[in-house]
Amino acid sequence: MKKETNHNKVKIIPLGGLEQIGMNMTAFEYEDSIIVVDCGMAFPSDDMLGIDLVIPDVSYLKNNIDKVKGFVITHGHEDHIGALPYVLRDVPAPVYGTKLTIGLIENKLKEHNMMKTVRRKVVKHGQSINLGCFRIEFIKTNHSIADASALAIFSPAGIIVHTGDFKIDYTPVFGEPADLQRFAELGKKGVLALMCDSTNAIRPGFTMSERTVGKTFDSIFAEHKNNRIIVATFASNVDRVQQIINTAYHYGRKVVVEGRSMVNVIGTASELGYINIPENTLIDIEHLKNYKKEDTVLITTGSQGESLAALSRMAADLHKKVSIMPGDVVILSSTPIPGNEKAVARVINELSMKGAEVINQDTHVSGHACQEEIKLMYSLVRPKFSIPVHGEYRHLMAQRNLAISMGIPKENVILMRSGDVIEIGDEGYRVADHVQAGGILVDGLGIGDVGNIVLRDRQNLAQNGIIIVVLTLEKYSNQLLAGPDIVSRGFVYVRESEDLMEEAQRIVDEAVQGCLEKHVSDWGKIKNIIRDSLSDFLWKKMKRNPMILPIIMEV
Amino acid sequence: MKKETNHNKVKIIPLGGLEQIGMNMTAFEYEDSIIVVDCGMAFPSDDMLGIDLVIPDVSYLKNNIDKVKGFVITHGHEDHIGALPYVLRDVPAPVYGTKLTIGLIENKLKEHNMMKTVRRKVVKHGQSINLGCFRIEFIKTNHSIADASALAIFSPAGIIVHTGDFKIDYTPVFGEPADLQRFAELGKKGVLALMCDSTNAIRPGFTMSERTVGKTFDSIFAEHKNNRIIVATFASNVDRVQQIINTAYHYGRKVVVEGRSMVNVIGTASELGYINIPENTLIDIEHLKNYKKEDTVLITTGSQGESLAALSRMAADLHKKVSIMPGDVVILSSTPIPGNEKAVARVINELSMKGAEVINQDTHVSGHACQEEIKLMYSLVRPKFSIPVHGEYRHLMAQRNLAISMGIPKENVILMRSGDVIEIGDEGYRVADHVQAGGILVDGLGIGDVGNIVLRDRQNLAQNGIIIVVLTLEKYSNQLLAGPDIVSRGFVYVRESEDLMEEAQRIVDEAVQGCLEKHVSDWGKIKNIIRDSLSDFLWKKMKRNPMILPIIMEV
Repeated sequence: MKKETNHNKVKIIPLGGLEQIGMNMTAFEYEDSIIVVDCGMAFPSDDMLGIDLVIPDVSYLKNNIDKVKGFVITHGHEDHIGALPYVLRDVPAPVYGTKLTIGLIENKLKEHNMMKTVRRKVVKHGQSINLGCFRIEFIKTNHSIADASALAIFSPAGIIVHTGDFKIDYTPVFGEPADLQRFAELGKKGVLALMCDSTNAIRPGFTMSERTVGKTFDSIFAEHKNNRIIVATFASNVDRVQQIINTAYHYGRKVVVEGRSMVNVIGTASELGYINIPENTLIDIEHLKNYKKEDTVLITTGSQGESLAALSRMAADLHKKVSIMPGDVVILSSTPIPGNEKAVARVINELSMKGAEVINQDTHVSGHACQEEIKLMYSLVRPKFSIPVHGEYRHLMAQRNLAISMGIPKENVILMRSGDVIEIGDEGYRVADHVQAGGILVDGLGIGDVGNIVLRDRQNLAQNGIIIVVLTLEKYSNQLLAGPDIVSRGFVYVRESEDLMEEAQRIVDEAVQGCLEKHVSDWGKIKNIIRDSLSDFLWKKMKRNPMILPIIMEV
Repeated sequence: MKKETNHNKVKIIPLGGLEQIGMNMTAFEYEDSIIVVDCGMAFPSDDMLGIDLVIPDVSYLKNNIDKVKGFVITHGHEDHIGALPYVLRDVPAPVYGTKLTIGLIENKLKEHNMMKTVRRKVVKHGQSINLGCFRIEFIKTNHSIADASALAIFSPAGIIVHTGDFKIDYTPVFGEPADLQRFAELGKKGVLALMCDSTNAIRPGFTMSERTVGKTFDSIFAEHKNNRIIVATFASNVDRVQQIINTAYHYGRKVVVEGRSMVNVIGTASELGYINIPENTLIDIEHLKNYKKEDTVLITTGSQGESLAALSRMAADLHKKVSIMPGDVVILSSTPIPGNEKAVARVINELSMKGAEVINQDTHVSGHACQEEIKLMYSLVRPKFSIPVHGEYRHLMAQRNLAISMGIPKENVILMRSGDVIEIGDEGYRVADHVQAGGILVDGLGIGDVGNIVLRDRQNLAQNGIIIVVLTLEKYSNQLLAGPDIVSRGFVYVRESEDLMEEAQRIVDEAVQGCLEKHVSDWGKIKNIIRDSLSDFLWKKMKRNPMILPIIMEV
C-alpha cells in the first residue's frame, strides 16, 4: 500500500475505560458501519453502596443500532467481556474473539440463557474479519490470560492499532510471544493511531516473564516437602494455574481445584486445550482426605481477600471441606488490587493465627506492559497519533509523557474522555461531539434503577441510620388519633439510650402539638416541622444526623 | 544491682494494640499499683459505618480505679494519645510524657475543656518518675514525630523495656539519635521482658534516615525553580515540615502552612522549640496572592487522600483560597496507609487533570524499625522474654520469628491478645486471667451507644435500603382504617420502578387482607406476614433484600 494523503476521517468513540481501570469499550464508526471493541464491566467504587457491578451506558449504540456490525473482543477478562450479557440484550450483534475468549463468553451466555440468541465466531491470531467497511486483524499478544489479542483496525481513513491489555513475554508459558514482527510491519505501512494499554504506564522497566513465577513455585515446593500447599490466584490466569500444576506434578502431588470461578475457567481452558493437566493429577476435593497432606496442592480463588471466595472461607473456618492446619503453606500468587489491601491483610492474619505460613514474595507478575514495553510498542508501530487507553487519568498522562518521549508531537497525543467523539484522519483530528456515556449500576436483577439519589440515601442511612416518626390524623378535624410513634434503625441501641429516646419523643410530641394548636393543615409543613425540630435536637445533643422520615396517615 | 532470683511477678495487661495498628494501651500492675502506658485511639474499620473513632474498653481500669497511678505516654501520635480525653473522664489520673507529647495532649484537653481537671507532667529523656511501686525511665528514641520515648519500667519483678513506636536514625533532623547506650546498659543489668514495636517487622533491612527525604526535597526544588510547590505530609511529622521549611528557605521561597491539624501541630512545635522557622519565611495564606507562585511553598494536610483535608479540597476545586494551576508541583510526602490507596489515587488523578505534576518517589521514609533495627534492639537489650506489640497478628508473628532468630527461646516469646493478663517474673510467666477488652465505638458525641446490632442494621441499610409499611388498625374491631402505605428510602428510583412498586403494594394489600380475614389479632404475626411476603416477592423479582419495617398504629 503506497502512502498517500487521505481525506477521510473515522470516528472513535470510547464508551468506557478512560476514567478508571475497567469497563473497557470503544466504538469505531465510519459512514454506516460501527464496530465495538470490548464490552467490559467495572467493579463498583466505594461510594456505590449495594451495587454489584457497573456496565457502560450504550445509549449511543442503541440510537445507531442499524449500524452496529459486531463486537470484537480482545481477551476474556471481566473488564473486557463482563457487560456483554447486558449490552447484547439492547444491542444484538455478533461477537468475535479468539477461542478461549469466546469460550469464556459462552460461559456467561449460558448463565444468562442467551446461547441461542447470540451469534459468535472464533478468530485466529493472524486472521482478519470484515465488518461493514472495517477489516479487523487479530494480532497475538501476551497478557495474564491466554489468547489475548491486539487489533489492527483497517478503516478507509487509515489503520488504527488497539493493543488491548498486553505485556511482552518472550518466554510465555503457553503459546507464542507477542507478534512483534506484525506490529513492525504495520508500522512500516503507516499507522494512523495507536491506542495503547496505560495500566502500568507509571511503572518503570519491563514486566517480568510469567515463567519467573514458575521458578518461585519450584523453590517453594522444594523447601516445603512436608507441608500441604495452598495456592490462591486469579481464576482467569490459566498460565499461572498451569505452572502450579507443572510444579505439583514434578513433586508428585495431587491437585485440587477449588472455588466456583476457578473450576469454571479451568474447565473451559482444559476443554479448549489451553491447559495441560497430566493424567491422575487432578483429584476431587471429596477425595482430599484419602491423601497425605504433603502429597496435595490446592489451587483456589480468594487471592484478593474477597469475603465469599474459597481462601477467605478457609481462613475464617467457614469452608465446608478444607480446614487450615498448622504447617500449611499458603502462597498468595497475586498482588492486591488497590482497595483490596485491607481485605488481603485480614486473610493473612487469619491464616497466620491458624498456624499457616503465608508466602507472597515473588509469587506474582503483572499482565500489563511497563514503560519500556510501551516504548517498544511505540517504536514498532510508530503511529501518527497516540490515544492512551485503559487507565485512570494519571496512567493516561504517564503514557502521554512516554509517547512524547518517543517522538510523537505533543499535539498528536489525544487524551479522551468516555463519550468524546473524535474524527481522525491523516490530516488531523477534531473533537466532533460528545455523546451520552458513563456507568449504569447493576444491583441484583435491577439495571439502572439505582442512581445518585438512591445512593445518597444509602450513604446517609449507612452513616447515621434512620428515625421514622408515624402519626395518624383524623381527615376532617385534623385531630391526632394515634402517635407520634418513633421507630429507629441503625441509630443507637434504644435500650441503652432510654433517656435520649424519651427526650426525642417529647420533642416530637411538642412539634406535633404545636402544629395542631396552630391548625397547620398542610402535611408537608407538619412533616418539615417534625423533621427540623428532631434534627436540631439530635445534632445539638449527639452531633449526629440520622435520616428522619415523618409519615402521616389519615383516617 | 546484683542479679538474683526474683520470686515476684508483675502483671502485664494489654488493653489494645495487639489486633490492629492503633489503639495502643498497656497496663502494668503490681500489688496496689497500676500504671498505664499509652492511651490511643484507632480509626474505624470499613464495616464500622458512621463511626468516627474507636477507643479501648477500660472497664478493667475503672474496676481498679484506686490502683491507677498514672498514664505514661511514649509519644504524641493519635494511636497513643487519642483516647485520653475519653478515658480520663472515667479514670482520672496524672499524665506523664516528654515536652512535645504533653504539648499535643494539651491541645486535646483544651478541645475537650479538660485543662483544669487533668494533671500532667513533662519528663525529660534520661529522667525517671516514680508511680506506686514502679519507676519509669524515659529513653530517647527516633520516630516520625519528635520527642518519642521508649520506657524502662522498673518493677519489683524486674525491668521491662517498652520501645513505643521507634526507628533508629543515626542522623535525625532534630535532636539526638536513639540512646543505644542506655538500652545496652539496661541489657547488661538484665531485662526481664522486651515489648517491641512490630509495625515493620515484616520488612527486611533498615529504615532510611529522615534526612534522605530532605535530599529529595532539595533536588525537587532545584529542578522546579519556576513552579509553585505544594507538599502534603502528616501534620505530626514535625521533622518533615522542618526539612521542607529548610529547603524553602534555601531557595528563597515563602512558606504557607495550611490545614487545621497542620497549623495546630506546627504552632505547638514552634512554641515548644521543636521546629525552627527562619524569620520572614512563614506567610499567611491570605498574603499568598502577593507573591509570585514560584516564590512560594504550601505545606498542607491531605497526604492520605482524606476527603475533608486541604489537599483534597484543592484537588476537587473546593478550597477557598488555593486553586491548583497548570505547572504546580505537588509532592506527596507519605505512603498510603493500607485502605487509603484508592483515595490517594483519586487525589492524584484530580491534581493531574488540573495540570499539576505529582511527585511521590523517595519523598517519604517510615517511622518504624525494620527487621535489622528490631534485631539491633534485641542484641542490645537481650531480654529474657519477648512480647511483640503494635501490629496485626502477621506483624507480631514476624517479630516472634526475629526474636527466635536472635536466640530468644521459642517458649519465651509471648504472643498476647488484648485483655490477656500475664504474670511474669524471672522464673517464668503464666496467662493468669483474661479481662474485658476491645473497642468502644465513638459516633458524634455518643460513646458506646452504637454496637453490633446497630452496625448490622447500618450495613443492611447501606446495601439494600429500607421499605416501611404503615397501617392503622381500629383497636377493638381490628378493622383497617388506613394504609397499608409503602415508603422506601435507598431502594430504587420509585418513579422509574412504578410497575414494581404497584406490584409490591398489591402483595402487601393481599397480606394484610389475608390477616384481617383470618382474624389474626397478634400484631407481631401480622408484621411477620407482611415482611415475609414482601421479602419473598422482592427476592424473586429483583434478587434484593431491603430491610422491611412494618409499623402498625392503633386508633
